[in-house]
Amino acid sequence: MSTKTSIALAGLGRMGRIHLANLTGRCPSAQLAAVFDAREDVAREIGEQFGVPWTTTYEELLHNPDIDAVAIATPTGTHAPLTIAAAEAGKHVFSEKPISLDRAATVDVLDAVKKAAVQFQVGFHRRFDPDWVAGVHRIKAGELGEVFMFRTSLRDMIAPKAEFLAGSGGFFVDVTVHDFDTARWIAGEIVEVSAYGSSLSDPEGFAAIGDVDTAVVVVRFENGALGVIDNSRAAGYGYECSTEVVGSRATLRIDNPRRFGYEWRTPGSATVPLVADFEQRYPFAYQAEVEAFAQCVQTGEQPRCTGLDALAAFDLAQAASHAWRTGTTVKLSPQRVDGGVEYGALLSSH
Amino acid sequence: MSTKTSIALAGLGRMGRIHLANLTGRCPSAQLAAVFDAREDVAREIGEQFGVPWTTTYEELLHNPDIDAVAIATPTGTHAPLTIAAAEAGKHVFSEKPISLDRAATVDVLDAVKKAAVQFQVGFHRRFDPDWVAGVHRIKAGELGEVFMFRTSLRDMIAPKAEFLAGSGGFFVDVTVHDFDTARWIAGEIVEVSAYGSSLSDPEGFAAIGDVDTAVVVVRFENGALGVIDNSRAAGYGYECSTEVVGSRATLRIDNPRRFGYEWRTPGSATVPLVADFEQRYPFAYQAEVEAFAQCVQTGEQPRCTGLDALAAFDLAQAASHAWRTGTTVKLSPQRVDGGVEYGALLSSH
Amino acid sequence: MSTKTSIALAGLGRMGRIHLANLTGRCPSAQLAAVFDAREDVAREIGEQFGVPWTTTYEELLHNPDIDAVAIATPTGTHAPLTIAAAEAGKHVFSEKPISLDRAATVDVLDAVKKAAVQFQVGFHRRFDPDWVAGVHRIKAGELGEVFMFRTSLRDMIAPKAEFLAGSGGFFVDVTVHDFDTARWIAGEIVEVSAYGSSLSDPEGFAAIGDVDTAVVVVRFENGALGVIDNSRAAGYGYECSTEVVGSRATLRIDNPRRFGYEWRTPGSATVPLVADFEQRYPFAYQAEVEAFAQCVQTGEQPRCTGLDALAAFDLAQAASHAWRTGTTVKLSPQRVDGGVEYGALLSSH
Amino acid sequence: MSTKTSIALAGLGRMGRIHLANLTGRCPSAQLAAVFDAREDVAREIGEQFGVPWTTTYEELLHNPDIDAVAIATPTGTHAPLTIAAAEAGKHVFSEKPISLDRAATVDVLDAVKKAAVQFQVGFHRRFDPDWVAGVHRIKAGELGEVFMFRTSLRDMIAPKAEFLAGSGGFFVDVTVHDFDTARWIAGEIVEVSAYGSSLSDPEGFAAIGDVDTAVVVVRFENGALGVIDNSRAAGYGYECSTEVVGSRATLRIDNPRRFGYEWRTPGSATVPLVADFEQRYPFAYQAEVEAFAQCVQTGEQPRCTGLDALAAFDLAQAASHAWRTGTTVKLSPQRVDGGVEYGALLSSH
Repeated sequence: MSTKTSIALAGLGRMGRIHLANLTGRCPSAQLAAVFDAREDVAREIGEQFGVPWTTTYEELLHNPDIDAVAIATPTGTHAPLTIAAAEAGKHVFSEKPISLDRAATVDVLDAVKKAAVQFQVGFHRRFDPDWVAGVHRIKAGELGEVFMFRTSLRDMIAPKAEFLAGSGGFFVDVTVHDFDTARWIAGEIVEVSAYGSSLSDPEGFAAIGDVDTAVVVVRFENGALGVIDNSRAAGYGYECSTEVVGSRATLRIDNPRRFGYEWRTPGSATVPLVADFEQRYPFAYQAEVEAFAQCVQTGEQPRCTGLDALAAFDLAQAASHAWRTGTTVKLSPQRVDGGVEYGALLSSH
Repeated sequence: MSTKTSIALAGLGRMGRIHLANLTGRCPSAQLAAVFDAREDVAREIGEQFGVPWTTTYEELLHNPDIDAVAIATPTGTHAPLTIAAAEAGKHVFSEKPISLDRAATVDVLDAVKKAAVQFQVGFHRRFDPDWVAGVHRIKAGELGEVFMFRTSLRDMIAPKAEFLAGSGGFFVDVTVHDFDTARWIAGEIVEVSAYGSSLSDPEGFAAIGDVDTAVVVVRFENGALGVIDNSRAAGYGYECSTEVVGSRATLRIDNPRRFGYEWRTPGSATVPLVADFEQRYPFAYQAEVEAFAQCVQTGEQPRCTGLDALAAFDLAQAASHAWRTGTTVKLSPQRVDGGVEYGALLSSH
Repeated sequence: MSTKTSIALAGLGRMGRIHLANLTGRCPSAQLAAVFDAREDVAREIGEQFGVPWTTTYEELLHNPDIDAVAIATPTGTHAPLTIAAAEAGKHVFSEKPISLDRAATVDVLDAVKKAAVQFQVGFHRRFDPDWVAGVHRIKAGELGEVFMFRTSLRDMIAPKAEFLAGSGGFFVDVTVHDFDTARWIAGEIVEVSAYGSSLSDPEGFAAIGDVDTAVVVVRFENGALGVIDNSRAAGYGYECSTEVVGSRATLRIDNPRRFGYEWRTPGSATVPLVADFEQRYPFAYQAEVEAFAQCVQTGEQPRCTGLDALAAFDLAQAASHAWRTGTTVKLSPQRVDGGVEYGALLSSH
Repeated sequence: MSTKTSIALAGLGRMGRIHLANLTGRCPSAQLAAVFDAREDVAREIGEQFGVPWTTTYEELLHNPDIDAVAIATPTGTHAPLTIAAAEAGKHVFSEKPISLDRAATVDVLDAVKKAAVQFQVGFHRRFDPDWVAGVHRIKAGELGEVFMFRTSLRDMIAPKAEFLAGSGGFFVDVTVHDFDTARWIAGEIVEVSAYGSSLSDPEGFAAIGDVDTAVVVVRFENGALGVIDNSRAAGYGYECSTEVVGSRATLRIDNPRRFGYEWRTPGSATVPLVADFEQRYPFAYQAEVEAFAQCVQTGEQPRCTGLDALAAFDLAQAASHAWRTGTTVKLSPQRVDGGVEYGALLSSH
C-alpha cells in the first residue's frame, strides 16, 4: 500500500522510543507525523533527528489536519485525558496500557472514543506477537481440543524504584493485567479470581507501600478450566514471559525465547543466550501492534484489543487486588455487551 | 560390595513389576529373596521365572531368616498392616506411598517401625532421580540464591477408572502428595495451603465420587516464598512432570524429558520423542530408590525419605482437600521433632 | 537519521520482492526510489502499488538524479552489465550474487566500480544475520580460542527445474559459493579444496547437465584447520542452513531456527515449527544487508562484503568444480591485495 | 530368566571397570564369574571386593567349567591371542575393539572363533545405545526414505599421551573406526574413501609420530549417498558424538546428550549440562552390549556386531589412512560372504 497512516507520537520515554523506531521505518502502513513530549529538549532532539514537527503542546497535534492518529506513550496518569482530547478532535488513538488507574476515568475514555467513532487500540502487545499469534491460531482452530488449564509466568529481574511503583496502581494492575488479557484471549472469560502475594526482595520497602513483588493468581474460566498466573518483580535470573495451555488433545508451550539463535558449548555445558527484558522479547509484537493499528485506521476494522478489553483486564486486576487483600475468592459475572465483554466493578467475594 | 541386601517383594502389580526388574539385575546392593502376591498364579509364575521362593502367605516372608527386608507394592489399604507386621518381625521395610489413607493408621506405622528400630523408606522416587538430585544439589549449594517461587506440574493423560479412584483417598492425597514431598525437599516447610479443583474430562463421574480431575494448589513456605502446583488426570497430550524453582540469582528448570535422544525433522518441523508415563520417566529413580534403601539397610544411615516425610505429605494433602472443599486457606504450623518435621492433623483455616 | 538513501530496485522476481518489502518500510536508512523490470506488467503493478516511478528501461534509473543507488536482483546473466552501467552513471550498487558466471566479466565489474569509486556490495546475506553476527563476534573476540574445524550444511528440499540449473553455473557456483564466503568470514583464507558430488534425486537428469544435487567439500585453511561443507538440493525433509565452529576452547553452533517460538506437545512427542526456506530463515539478514548498504552509501564506509569477496567465493567454487571433476585436491595461494584477498584463477591441483 | 551367563572379565583398566559395573548388577542375563588382570594387586582387590575368583593367569579362566564366556578389555595387543585361546577352550568371547592392529592376526581370530563355533562380539557399543537403536529403527523401517547423506562427528577434548598413541594404530584405526562401523550400520557398504588430516593441538608432537589430531573422511556408499565423518582429539570444548542422516523424506539427528535433564537460567542465558566423555555418554550402551552378548550366548543368535564387522571397520580405517597419506581416493569392493561383508585388504586408489 502506498498510503500510510500518519501517526503523531506523544511521549518519548522508554516505550515511546520503541514506537519511534517502528514508526520510522519498520511499519509499512504507518509513518511518523510529529512528536510531542513535555520536555522541550527531548521533543526537539527527536523531531530534528527524524525530520518531523515537534511540540511541547499536545493540542498542536490535534489541530494538525495531516495527522490521522495519536500514539500515546506518556506517563500513565495522562493516558485518559490525552485520549479523550484526541478522540474529540477526531483522531484515532493507540494508547499504552493502562487507560487509567481509575475505573470511572477509564469508562469515560471508552465513552469518548465511542462517541467520536474513532479507532482505539490499547497496547496489549502479546496479542500481536508472531509466536503467540501462531500458537493461539492452532488453539482457535481446535487442534488443542478443549482448554483444561492455562498457565503463564511474567517475571522481571529487578523491581522498579518505589517512586515509580507508588503510581503504578499496585502489582496486579501493573503486572498481572497483561496476563489477564492473555488469559481472556486464549481461554475465554473468567468467573473466579484468587490471589496470593509476598514480598521477598525488599520486605520492608514493599510493606511500606502496601504492595508485593511476587504473586500467584488462580482463576476459573467459564468452561471450568483453571488458570494459574505467577508473577515476580524480583526474579534475579532474568526476564520471563512464558506460557502453557493444556488441552484435551495437546498442549501449547511458549517459552522465553533465545536472544540470538546460537549455542555456545564449553566443557560440560551448552549455553544459549536468552532475552533479558520485554524490549528484547517483543520487538516484532511492538512493530506488529502499531502496523495493525495503522491498518485498522485505514480499513475501519475493529482493533484486536479494544478499550473494553483494557477495561476487562483492569477489572480483573482489581479483583485480584481485592482477593489478595481480603484472602477471599472473588466471583465475577462477565456480561456480553456491544463490542465485547464487561466485568463491571467488583461484584462479590466469599 | 559383594554383600547384597536380600529383599522380598510383596505385590506384583504395575509398581511391583518395576521393583522386580530392579531387584533382579539393576541394583548392585540388592537381590530378590522371594515374592509374595495374594494371587497364586501370579506369585508362582514370577517366583519360578526368577528362581526365588514364592508364596501367597505374607507371614512366610517374615519367618524366613534369609530375608533382610520387604518391599511393599500391594494395594494401598494393605501397606500399613504389612509394614507393621514386617517391622515386628525385625524386617526393614520399603513401602510404596501412601502408608495409609487414615492418619491414625499412618502414625501407628511410624510408631511400629520406630519401636522395632528397622529402616523404613517410602516411595517418593523423585528424591532419587539423577536429574532432580543434580539440580537440587545446586540449590542446596546456594547457587540459586534464596528460593522465591516453586512451581511444578504433575499430569497424567487419562483418568483411572472410578473403582480405583474411589479407594485413592482423593485427588490431593493420590496425586498432589508427590508434589508436596518435592516442595518440602526443595523449598522447605509450608505454612499455608489453598486449593482449587475442577472436573473437566468427566464432570458427572467426578461429581458422583466428590472428586476432581484437575487442580491447582498454592502454598506459602516458611521463608515467604510462594509455591504453585498444578495437577491433572486428564491432560490429553500426555504425561508431565516438570518443575521450576525461581531464586534470587538463578532459576532451575526440570522439564519432561525425551524418551530417546534423537530428533526427527520433516518439512517445517522438528520432533522429539517424549516420555509418556511415570514408568518411562523415572526408570533411574525407581532403580536408585531401591538401591539407596538396600544401602541404608547395610549402613544404618537414615533413608532420604522417611515415614515422617510421608506423614507430612499426607497432612499437606489433607490440608489441600480441606482447603478445596471449604474454599479457605489452611494455615499450618510444622513442628521440628526428632528425625524430621511434623505438621499434625489439620490446625486451622480462614 | 532523517536522510534516507534512495534506492532503485531492478528485478522484481523472488529476491526482488524480498528487497521490495525491506525498501518500503523496514530499513530506516533506505527508501525505494523506483522500480525496473523487463516485464512491463510487473513493473507497472509494483510501481503503482508503492507509489514510485516504474520503468522497463534500465537506463532511466541511471539518468535520474534523485536515485543514489541501484539494488540489482535481475537474472544472473545481467548482473555484470547492469552493475557496470550503474557504476559508470555514478550510482552505488547492491547486487545479488553471483556477479557473473564468467571470471573475466566479474573482474571487469570490480574494475568498473573501483574506477567509478562507488560503493559495491554483494548479497552474501549471512554476514548480516543477527544470529551469525552475534556468534561470530564471540569468535573474533577470541572466546573460541583457535579455530580447529569449520563445518556447515546448506540444503534445499527440492531441486530447481533443469532450465534454471542449466544457467546456474553448476552446483558449486550456485550453492556452495555461500558457504565459501561464510568459511572465509569465520575461519580465514583457504589453501586447499577437495570436492565430492552425487546425483540422488534424479540421477539421469543431473547426469544430462553434468551436474550433481548433493556434494561434500573439504577445505584446509591457512592455519591448518579443516573445513567441511555439505550441500544438497534434494534434502526431502526441508531447508537447512546450520553450522558449527570447533575451537580450542569452545564450539559455536548455529542451527536451523524455529519458524515460530512455540512447542506443540501431543502424546509421546514435542514438535517445534522450523523454517522451510531461505526466505523464512533470513528475513532479518535481508533487511540488515540493505540497511547496511544504505548506511555505507551515507558514511562512505566499506561494505562488509565487497566485490573482492564475491570474486574469492567464485574462485573457490570454481576450484571445487575442478576438484570434483578431476578427483584431485586443488591447491590455492590467496594473495593479499588492496582492499581484500584475491585467489586468482585456478592455480594447481594434484 | 533365572539363568545367567557366567562371564569372566579379563582386564581391569578403564573399559574393564565399566564392564565390571555392568556385570555385577545391571545386566539381568549376565553375572561376573571371575576376574583376570596381569597386575596381581588389581586382580586381587577387585576379586575380593566382588566375591569372585581372581587370577593373574589367563589360562585359569579357560579351565574353569563354570565360566561360559570371557569379556576381554586388556591392552589392544593382547586381544587377538586372548580371544583365540578362549575360543579354543570353547568359551564365547566379547572383545573390546580393535581385534588387532594387524590384518592377518585379525583374520586368524575370525578363523579361530568360526572353527570353535563360539559366539564372538566386538565392542561397537553405539549399535546398542537406546537413542541410536530407536532412531536407526525408524530409518530401517523406511520412514526416512532413501538415505542421501550420512554425517557424524566424534571428538575428544584432550589428546592422549604420545606413548598411548604410538600403539594406537593411528588416528583412523583408533578413532574413525567407530564411525565406519556406524556408517555401515546405518547407510550400508562403502565404495570410496578419502581422508584429510591436520595436527592443530601439538603440530610437532603429532608430526613426530606421523599422526594427526583432527581429520575429515568422506565416503561414498553403494547407493551413491555421500558420508562425512569429522574427528578430533583436541576439541577443547568437550566430548562430542553426534550424527545426522539426511534422507529423501526426513532427517534424523542424534546430538550429544545432556548429562542431567535440567536447565539452569541466569541473566541472559540458559545452560544445560552436557556429557563430557564416552563413559558419561554411553552408560546404557555399555550395559546393553554386555546384556545382548549374554543373551546371544544363551539363545545362539548371531551378535549384532561380529568379527566380520570389526574387520570391515578395520579395513575401512586402513583405507582412510592410505587415502590420507597418499592424497588419493581409495576405491573399495565390498564382497558379500557367509555371515557378512568383507572389504579385503586395500584394493586400489586413484
